[in-house]
Amino acid sequence: MVIPSKILETAVDEIATLPGVGKRSAMRYALHLLNSSDSDFAAFIGALTRLKNDAHYCSRCHCISDTPVCPICSSPKRNQKVVCVVENIQEVMAIENTGQYTGLYHVLGGVISPLDGIGINDLTIRQLIDRIEPEQIEEVILALPTTMEGDTTNIYIDRQLKAFPGIKVTTLARGLAVGDNLEYADEVTLGRSIINRIPFDSL
Amino acid sequence: MVIPSKILETAVDEIATLPGVGKRSAMRYALHLLNSSDSDFAAFIGALTRLKNDAHYCSRCHCISDTPVCPICSSPKRNQKVVCVVENIQEVMAIENTGQYTGLYHVLGGVISPLDGIGINDLTIRQLIDRIEPEQIEEVILALPTTMEGDTTNIYIDRQLKAFPGIKVTTLARGLAVGDNLEYADEVTLGRSIINRIPFDSL
Repeated sequence: MVIPSKILETAVDEIATLPGVGKRSAMRYALHLLNSSDSDFAAFIGALTRLKNDAHYCSRCHCISDTPVCPICSSPKRNQKVVCVVENIQEVMAIENTGQYTGLYHVLGGVISPLDGIGINDLTIRQLIDRIEPEQIEEVILALPTTMEGDTTNIYIDRQLKAFPGIKVTTLARGLAVGDNLEYADEVTLGRSIINRIPFDSL
Repeated sequence: MVIPSKILETAVDEIATLPGVGKRSAMRYALHLLNSSDSDFAAFIGALTRLKNDAHYCSRCHCISDTPVCPICSSPKRNQKVVCVVENIQEVMAIENTGQYTGLYHVLGGVISPLDGIGINDLTIRQLIDRIEPEQIEEVILALPTTMEGDTTNIYIDRQLKAFPGIKVTTLARGLAVGDNLEYADEVTLGRSIINRIPFDSL
């Protein structure tokens, strides 16, 4: 793309570092910001700067929070004995949106991925283990992505949890998505859904 | 979407004001920025702020430019007698990318749109008219969008140009897109392409 201004080009390059944003979309966003009013632009930049500088994390579950302990961790309505381990904040929101989970969370901040230089100490695994006894956690649900890195992290956490006899370690059910046609389901998923079949009346 | 932090929610709302960005993408971008390093974040914000505060416009064609007169307007290789009228900077880039145009541009900054509160005085139509005589323009190419607002603006400019006898006013050819199948072309375009058919050897 021929860009007639270095300033515009730099802005487009920066916007294109956002995940899934190409040069063409970046140009659209850049020109939108360029043409926006001064007050709209100030609100935009202000909101992003506040997010970066003022965002806090819950001291228990490490989810983003405006208070030292997040509303989920401090809610008396939540089951304080169950902790769901997730990769990032967006998974907390995804599970909350289902309305089906009443326990707590623990945000790892990633998964073990040597290729990306993410090791055990870059994650909050230690902090998870340190929660188990004082909080009398009875069940840990491993809800990491179903990738090799996610599986590796699951296995590592599961081993660490072996130190606490009596703790239940579970993971999300794998199987057909609601609305899936058997014909189009991938064979690994379909295979697992046969092996791990469930009582019909539990649906 | 349940968002556990007001600061995050405000940032997501602001990002979602970008054209074509929904809440889900906005959340992805917000979390990406939140997790980016301080220097990357500063570069991102710096580039946008510089774009907004330091961007200049060419005094002749009103395209974004780092110099008082843009490289296109000041190039001796361009045909200084032909001006292509476009809505915005992105159309300049789109036409430049074709490599088929050697004349100059005039960026209107929008099209006449009473519903959006954009009138004649919000655009650079006056500045276009004021260029005709001193620059001895011989041809004006109207390359505005093929919408009602674009057509209205075309007609208005065409009328203003009637004051300059001998000036040639042209517009972009309408017809089949290269690679188009006749069967799937819309009937207005196909109809126009029959009426305005061209000598075969001009292709």
